[in-house]
Amino acid sequence: MNSKVCQNNKVRIIAGPCAVESEDQLIAVCKHLNKLGLTYVRAGAYKPRLNPHSFQGLGSAGFDIIKKCTNKYNLKSVSEVVDEKSLHEAIDCIDVLQVGTRNMTNYSLLKAIGYYTNKTNIPVILKRGMSSKVSEWITASDYISEKGNDNIILCERGIRTFEDSTRFTLDISSVSVAKRQSIYPVCVDVSHSAGNAGIVPDLAKAAVACGADAVMIEVHPDPQNAKCDGLQQLSLQAFEKLIADIKPIAKALNKEII
Amino acid sequence: MNSKVCQNNKVRIIAGPCAVESEDQLIAVCKHLNKLGLTYVRAGAYKPRLNPHSFQGLGSAGFDIIKKCTNKYNLKSVSEVVDEKSLHEAIDCIDVLQVGTRNMTNYSLLKAIGYYTNKTNIPVILKRGMSSKVSEWITASDYISEKGNDNIILCERGIRTFEDSTRFTLDISSVSVAKRQSIYPVCVDVSHSAGNAGIVPDLAKAAVACGADAVMIEVHPDPQNAKCDGLQQLSLQAFEKLIADIKPIAKALNKEII
Amino acid sequence: MNSKVCQNNKVRIIAGPCAVESEDQLIAVCKHLNKLGLTYVRAGAYKPRLNPHSFQGLGSAGFDIIKKCTNKYNLKSVSEVVDEKSLHEAIDCIDVLQVGTRNMTNYSLLKAIGYYTNKTNIPVILKRGMSSKVSEWITASDYISEKGNDNIILCERGIRTFEDSTRFTLDISSVSVAKRQSIYPVCVDVSHSAGNAGIVPDLAKAAVACGADAVMIEVHPDPQNAKCDGLQQLSLQAFEKLIADIKPIAKALNKEII
Amino acid sequence: MNSKVCQNNKVRIIAGPCAVESEDQLIAVCKHLNKLGLTYVRAGAYKPRLNPHSFQGLGSAGFDIIKKCTNKYNLKSVSEVVDEKSLHEAIDCIDVLQVGTRNMTNYSLLKAIGYYTNKTNIPVILKRGMSSKVSEWITASDYISEKGNDNIILCERGIRTFEDSTRFTLDISSVSVAKRQSIYPVCVDVSHSAGNAGIVPDLAKAAVACGADAVMIEVHPDPQNAKCDGLQQLSLQAFEKLIADIKPIAKALNKEII
Repeated sequence: MNSKVCQNNKVRIIAGPCAVESEDQLIAVCKHLNKLGLTYVRAGAYKPRLNPHSFQGLGSAGFDIIKKCTNKYNLKSVSEVVDEKSLHEAIDCIDVLQVGTRNMTNYSLLKAIGYYTNKTNIPVILKRGMSSKVSEWITASDYISEKGNDNIILCERGIRTFEDSTRFTLDISSVSVAKRQSIYPVCVDVSHSAGNAGIVPDLAKAAVACGADAVMIEVHPDPQNAKCDGLQQLSLQAFEKLIADIKPIAKALNKEII
Repeated sequence: MNSKVCQNNKVRIIAGPCAVESEDQLIAVCKHLNKLGLTYVRAGAYKPRLNPHSFQGLGSAGFDIIKKCTNKYNLKSVSEVVDEKSLHEAIDCIDVLQVGTRNMTNYSLLKAIGYYTNKTNIPVILKRGMSSKVSEWITASDYISEKGNDNIILCERGIRTFEDSTRFTLDISSVSVAKRQSIYPVCVDVSHSAGNAGIVPDLAKAAVACGADAVMIEVHPDPQNAKCDGLQQLSLQAFEKLIADIKPIAKALNKEII
Repeated sequence: MNSKVCQNNKVRIIAGPCAVESEDQLIAVCKHLNKLGLTYVRAGAYKPRLNPHSFQGLGSAGFDIIKKCTNKYNLKSVSEVVDEKSLHEAIDCIDVLQVGTRNMTNYSLLKAIGYYTNKTNIPVILKRGMSSKVSEWITASDYISEKGNDNIILCERGIRTFEDSTRFTLDISSVSVAKRQSIYPVCVDVSHSAGNAGIVPDLAKAAVACGADAVMIEVHPDPQNAKCDGLQQLSLQAFEKLIADIKPIAKALNKEII
Repeated sequence: MNSKVCQNNKVRIIAGPCAVESEDQLIAVCKHLNKLGLTYVRAGAYKPRLNPHSFQGLGSAGFDIIKKCTNKYNLKSVSEVVDEKSLHEAIDCIDVLQVGTRNMTNYSLLKAIGYYTNKTNIPVILKRGMSSKVSEWITASDYISEKGNDNIILCERGIRTFEDSTRFTLDISSVSVAKRQSIYPVCVDVSHSAGNAGIVPDLAKAAVACGADAVMIEVHPDPQNAKCDGLQQLSLQAFEKLIADIKPIAKALNKEII
């Protein structure tokens, strides 16, 4: 995923569990993604959770599991960094770095990412702050690019509004706006805004139809026993059906799901 | 458009100018819609405008023009009512009544609509209040249905948020949520939230892909000289291209654009 | 309350139940207000409720009770109108008309109020729409004033935001902004935004301190058995304490509570 | 400022420039605060700015200036930390640490603050995230306190809403709610939400009246030439008038301004 070549006729699916919980869990997901012909797996090792007493992820051990599983199934990994320590660990074993919504305005982290990746130009997914305007989100990316890495993918993931039937309000218009106002490809995380798996497929279809370059979807082999965000993660079966359903939509747009 | 049979494999396009300005203007639009094989035309005769000194619509004369033009081109008309006077006028000459976002919580109007249409069961499009939760929007429809007319179509049109790159934030998730929590079909007005015509096509594609039963799109023969909301209205050419582009998406979902 | 002379050294307290429920209930409130030396009583006869099956108010019978009670205790009454019928009833027996947040963008109603009161210039409290910008709220008042009645009082009552610890977010800054951008006095309804009586006193103090010309506070002789919004209504005792507490604040600003 | 004893009859004013720009600038402010009998000065050395090309503060050199000036005028300093580097610098020379709104959900920073200050228990002002619910803001403080420092002051500074007449919407109700739902004192930053100096005095009065334990106010000797946020900073003269105006309000509440 080179952001420079991302705005072509491919729609990248980035699927996987909210958090890596065990090797068995991630193997199950990777095997399935590989079977479906997909390329990217997401899995959180460091989880910025609202509550310090919630599951915070497996940390560096999680990165090791991710590396092992993705190597085995020839997938590319996407995982979040939250500070300099996790950044340095991730650089060694993760294919695509992610900055979460809670750190979009942590400019010290953005600068560090730009600085330490300016040679490798490893792709960086910059999630939109949940209360950031599109213009602020694009400007935040400058903190990374001006240090030398402009291999950036913007990711809409829902914003804070008064509506409470979903966890966040997916700002689908931001895809079109960001693609017009920046040079970067735009991904849509359809799981975090939904907050429940039932409406995830509709949102994924909408994301593909409106021109997203990538779609991030949470998938778990056993959502009901997930250690975090279980309600919004698709089962492997539901995910397989979704992929089958969005392929014709991509094709209608002369695009290919990978 | 009977709301009971709307949730089938048709996607209704409801296109037309923000406001009817003249017979020539509306004839140009109706002729084009007819040529494209579409069925519904929207045109405002009564316009609730923020500023009392802005163009307020042609009023009852506008209804007369709408009736004449739609009869000529065998289209069905959709137009807004804002009070009892406009309601009584519209009942005689308009095919589908619309309640705008600014009147969704004008419960006296909703009751009057239900009361005066309970025999004819004329379809009523209830736009979502710009700061109404999905649950409140659905509950508001009860004011109409409990008076005897349950031929209701819910219409998402964007909500108020902090984001200012669009006029309102289109809450695309609300389509899925409203279809699960109500018995009514759901329409998406993609023009008012966009605020500019450039992103309207992407939003229309998203609306179709995520399962909307109808899509409302502002079209004007001469957007730059429109008396209201010129920036967000598509030209006839841009609209024709959009219809060509969304047909394959509808087909991918086994649906037909009408 | 003439809006032209309202911006002087008086702070008007407008207290009373959310809805008039019975003569006994309103007598209890009026007697208490009179004892405390206050001037205005609020009581809703027509209640625009989210749900058509909730208590909708006593209607015109409520206006009769309000007139009787306020006459007895020499108070001025404030009550909401929701359509032309209630407007004509209210003109005959209510001292200050109120337009609620749900009807701020019901421009037909605003025009009717301006038109039918342009001789008497009866004061009209225009509550801010829950998702209206300050500029839109002020502009809405033009619908009334341009028909001939500019005896208008603007009333902030809380706006829709993501915060859910209160029912609405009281936009205290809007008091200062509205006083700078309009010629009208500004009232603050501290009960509807709070949603619970516990924080109402703090908000009332803030409203007085920041320069509000009037403060609207819900008071009920028996909040736990109120037919609507019981949680946010103060008991007579709590209200009496609040008045005692805000008098020194008003005095610190060289103002008088009436 | 020990948060345990802060909820007494004192209202702490924390005034000073958005950013320390030079020794002369800060001396002018400190001298004035000292003359007015105040105790705390705020000044940013590290400024998290939206745009990487905006003035980012003087960094560690700024901390040195702050230490020198506050020592000279016997004031206590408040300044922001943005990462581990600035944290370690600040611990040596700043009296009260501040976490800004953009880092409230930077949990790695919160943990580091708790960890490195658990012996000294230096006070930490935790500003509310601009889109954080009150409950999330209080929960975020647990990241600091569970590492051993519970000398925390919560600071409301305005939230993101649709209203654009102010920079952010000051959620005045959050003061009462946070004081009920946490054990910590609550400060109100009245400058950042206002966005313009004209309404700052009204907001400061409201903050004191509703029970805030501290009020943060931006003051600059030459606002028009300030390197950041010039519009919202009070001049020394305007600030002096404000202090004179709020003293009687504090007194009306049996509180003292320090």
